[in-house]
Amino acid sequence: MTLKFFFGPKTCALASRIALEEAGAAYEAVRLDMAGGQQRTADYLAVNPKGRVPALATPQGVLTETPAILAYIAQAYPQAKLAPSDDAFAFAQIQAFNSYLCSTVHINHAHKMRGYRWASEETSYADMKRKVPETMAESFALIEREMLVGPWAMGESYTIADPYLYTMARWLEGDGVDVARFPKVADHMRRMQERPAVQRAIAGDAA
Amino acid sequence: MTLKFFFGPKTCALASRIALEEAGAAYEAVRLDMAGGQQRTADYLAVNPKGRVPALATPQGVLTETPAILAYIAQAYPQAKLAPSDDAFAFAQIQAFNSYLCSTVHINHAHKMRGYRWASEETSYADMKRKVPETMAESFALIEREMLVGPWAMGESYTIADPYLYTMARWLEGDGVDVARFPKVADHMRRMQERPAVQRAIAGDAA
Repeated sequence: MTLKFFFGPKTCALASRIALEEAGAAYEAVRLDMAGGQQRTADYLAVNPKGRVPALATPQGVLTETPAILAYIAQAYPQAKLAPSDDAFAFAQIQAFNSYLCSTVHINHAHKMRGYRWASEETSYADMKRKVPETMAESFALIEREMLVGPWAMGESYTIADPYLYTMARWLEGDGVDVARFPKVADHMRRMQERPAVQRAIAGDAA
Repeated sequence: MTLKFFFGPKTCALASRIALEEAGAAYEAVRLDMAGGQQRTADYLAVNPKGRVPALATPQGVLTETPAILAYIAQAYPQAKLAPSDDAFAFAQIQAFNSYLCSTVHINHAHKMRGYRWASEETSYADMKRKVPETMAESFALIEREMLVGPWAMGESYTIADPYLYTMARWLEGDGVDVARFPKVADHMRRMQERPAVQRAIAGDAA
């Protein structure tokens, strides 16, 4: 089957694209002009009514939300062994890792440029933006201390938590946080960048 | 096995508790004094370093994050049929539903009382609080129009998306949104309240 993958460059969609590459999935990548607002056009809203990326069109229908797309890729391409298939606890641990990235880390980051989602005044946006280095550093301190087992997120096995962690870690520099404060995260980034699937996904993201 | 379930009353932990009841799981509920800050004590941080609820202690370790706990309950108690076990797409659709509730709906709600997570000024907190009725209404308009199939979240089958949707819908009134604007959501709430597992979970939450 060929999947259709809708993405915007430098967004969290990179995580799903890395997983698609790791799984050896056949997919067509569709780049949206996010700055031009293509994600809010009628054509795209028919694909994803949320007007966000990523979205993955499968033969059964469209999936959204990074943790869900990652779980789908792991389960639809079991030979890639991107998540355990027979251990409810181990699978849920991965989902907990990804849920934290989605609902805490990505949300912290979003307050830099997307304050209008949750407030209406320019002064509030500026206030939110100032706090981003602090909230991102706090989140990555927790990841470093409590969550990232090493060498991969969940330990010895590479899983769907790794591309998502890597994608969020890539935002640290722009968010005013020096990744060197978090040696395990920095080591994880280096390991990720050595993987051919990651290199292909990044090249595609920038293309 | 007996699970240990850490919760605070009137929090999103209700969703997981409903699922535990639906699954017929044996669990001990541990109520935290959230107003008194028990979630930030050393004893609890040893359970969940995030200092949040819910947390579910299993024989294999502690799980956090509602979408992950819900997926665990569905997979660890397959006889309850709370999620499909052999359809990667259908399972991922449920995860997408729950991920939206976690990273968009719950986050919208959190800006009412927890603005300090993302900003530092009282004026920003007030601004965020004013916008909550708008963001919650927008999210539930999307749920009503695009996500809630009916009668249950995913259609004919009751799944782990239902207790989570219900838990978020219960917040609407306090967030200044009349649920009657969303007939399918209102109908879903009524159906949920008829279920014995939901009634037991609510009684336990208030106990």
